[in-house]
Amino acid sequence: MRELLDLRPPDEAWRIFCEHFDPRVAAERVPVRETLGRVLAEDLTAPHDLPAFPRCNMDGYAVRAVDTYGASPGLPAYLEVVGEVMMGETPAVHIGPGQCALVHTGGALPPGADAVVMIEVTQAVDETSIEVLKPVAVGENVIQVGEDVRRGDMVLPAGHQLRPQDLGGLLALGITEVAVARRPRVAILSQGDELVEPEQEPGPGQVRDINSYTLAALTEQAGGTPVRLGIVGDDLDALQKAAATALAQADILVMSAGSSVSARDMTAQVVKSLGKPGVLVHGVSLRPGKPTILAVCDGKPVFGLPGNPVSAMNTFRLFVIPTIRLLLGAELQPPLIVQARLARNVPSATGREDHVQVRLEERDGEPWAVPIFGKSNLIYTLIRADGEIVVPLDSNGVAEGEVVSVHLH
Amino acid sequence: MRELLDLRPPDEAWRIFCEHFDPRVAAERVPVRETLGRVLAEDLTAPHDLPAFPRCNMDGYAVRAVDTYGASPGLPAYLEVVGEVMMGETPAVHIGPGQCALVHTGGALPPGADAVVMIEVTQAVDETSIEVLKPVAVGENVIQVGEDVRRGDMVLPAGHQLRPQDLGGLLALGITEVAVARRPRVAILSQGDELVEPEQEPGPGQVRDINSYTLAALTEQAGGTPVRLGIVGDDLDALQKAAATALAQADILVMSAGSSVSARDMTAQVVKSLGKPGVLVHGVSLRPGKPTILAVCDGKPVFGLPGNPVSAMNTFRLFVIPTIRLLLGAELQPPLIVQARLARNVPSATGREDHVQVRLEERDGEPWAVPIFGKSNLIYTLIRADGEIVVPLDSNGVAEGEVVSVHLH
Repeated sequence: MRELLDLRPPDEAWRIFCEHFDPRVAAERVPVRETLGRVLAEDLTAPHDLPAFPRCNMDGYAVRAVDTYGASPGLPAYLEVVGEVMMGETPAVHIGPGQCALVHTGGALPPGADAVVMIEVTQAVDETSIEVLKPVAVGENVIQVGEDVRRGDMVLPAGHQLRPQDLGGLLALGITEVAVARRPRVAILSQGDELVEPEQEPGPGQVRDINSYTLAALTEQAGGTPVRLGIVGDDLDALQKAAATALAQADILVMSAGSSVSARDMTAQVVKSLGKPGVLVHGVSLRPGKPTILAVCDGKPVFGLPGNPVSAMNTFRLFVIPTIRLLLGAELQPPLIVQARLARNVPSATGREDHVQVRLEERDGEPWAVPIFGKSNLIYTLIRADGEIVVPLDSNGVAEGEVVSVHLH
Repeated sequence: MRELLDLRPPDEAWRIFCEHFDPRVAAERVPVRETLGRVLAEDLTAPHDLPAFPRCNMDGYAVRAVDTYGASPGLPAYLEVVGEVMMGETPAVHIGPGQCALVHTGGALPPGADAVVMIEVTQAVDETSIEVLKPVAVGENVIQVGEDVRRGDMVLPAGHQLRPQDLGGLLALGITEVAVARRPRVAILSQGDELVEPEQEPGPGQVRDINSYTLAALTEQAGGTPVRLGIVGDDLDALQKAAATALAQADILVMSAGSSVSARDMTAQVVKSLGKPGVLVHGVSLRPGKPTILAVCDGKPVFGLPGNPVSAMNTFRLFVIPTIRLLLGAELQPPLIVQARLARNVPSATGREDHVQVRLEERDGEPWAVPIFGKSNLIYTLIRADGEIVVPLDSNGVAEGEVVSVHLH
């Protein structure tokens, strides 16, 4: 009944996993309007210059700059107003020497003109002439053709996660559909004879399943599609069948094991049956999260996570989310980190990476991180926490008052 | 044609707006499984203790702690094994003096027992007896009733934005449906004779509308529901009609004005017609984003944003997102900030808050922020940027080499 784990440090466990996993990004074409947060699966280049015509960047008069040289309030330049360029229309006028046209911000610069004089530095003389009180240089207050982006330039690379401004930039170029990475399907199985669905009233000795919901939510946040497959009891045959069915329809299989050693042994056995090479890592020098299984079965990642809710979320963040990102062809989302002073000593054992939940508090205008100690069975330690600190493998703890990086979650 | 703006600093503009806006949070009941990222509209308390029964936190033997006192490898305590507590079942055994039962992590502690001895510090003697090599204290390796959360405790307050672990914590208590804030509907109108839909090939002098898409995406990120209403030309009647219809079906109206002064004047006129008190702020000492309108019309917030894409996004972030959060009853999402050294001088005028786009670069292992200067017409300045720095109102710039806070976006 004793578990025989060959513990690996978290980064070594990840390296071993990566050596056996060859992620392939599957793409699908999606309208750009629906791609917020999706990851590009193709490099995109500009099909044309942006802007496609020279645009006025001020309200004022389009001029030939040379006509304004030396202009001053004492000695203004007189220009003939030969028309107005309406928004969204081709300029009907041509600006000759000594001439100008009324223009609006965003409108087209009429041919012949090479600059715009701001309306604020002009004075109307009569219906058809103005005084310019200040010179402009060639190109002043004009957005040149291709100044935003040039035809043929790479605008966004594959692997980029699309932000609101990216949608705007693509649509500005008339790119209305793009190839994005298909969301990896993450099948989630909760294992344990003690588990019932949250809607159910637990009988004596029973508890509600929560891992399949927390892990589904983490999957969504990371850009995957969760496929919750419910609860399976601690029964080898049933589990084997459920796992094989799940893996067939998903890109990743996550089993949160029963919390007892015998239930966990069962997970390892099931993973072994799912394909080659099978279990790569069984046990990680990590708290919480030691009895974690990393596996690749016939090309697909399979994870056996501990049943305790805090351990399950911690190991999901460390191993499953990076796997989802690999299948998206995307970089990891940068963690949201704040610096704070530690409010209490946090002891740790060397040779083990500790993840300690903390609550942030302000004291005298400075942020402090207050450790929340609690067994890894207690989901509310995560709820009371604002984030966590990581005590690295080679450290035996962090002292009160030290500045630590708090990963918010 | 000259715009007469009464410029307000950004924080004063926001204060004036808030004095006239009385946000009401509308609630709806939603299954907890679908509430990731939603904002609670009620305080939630625990309907029962969690756990509801004392649980074993280790694999081992449930014992009366007193029976193990003084036990050591040289002088072990002998205990009679009277049964096993199966996962998910009521313990059928009662632990009397000198007795113990086999238990599993997460299972119920049998009555009579008050601690669990880890299996690692026991030795089987025969089928029905074991040796305990180390004493345990009362309560050791046991999760007590209510240790995670006590019946009646507030578990999550109204205004809290739900994270994966929160879903788990609620479901663990059998809370499967909650009241969350209804997503505010944000109607978005793009105004401008020069605008065409992104699918369309722009004619000479025309450009594709992108603001309604970038602002819709920002709305989604902030927790609102965007209602894109398309493009309206610079026509007062048409605009007035479109705005009134939009406002009637939404909680917030955002108009991104045409970029010329006359088009912007039209926006102000339209806003005035929508209800009382109408325009509260017309002009903010901000770059980009000066010609911004903040208004409340018959209780609903209305914003006239500049037409330039960079200005529109900047002012949306500053004023519309906080308004969405008010209607959600939620705190602002904390900005993602990194510290970096400024790679070039950034000049600024005092009396104006400048938002300058920057790209992050690593130089000798240190992050540097490289300013991306560009006209506020150029959407690609936002796309090339990783974030922005804010030069405050009372500063005339930031010098190269200074450490700045970069707000990522």
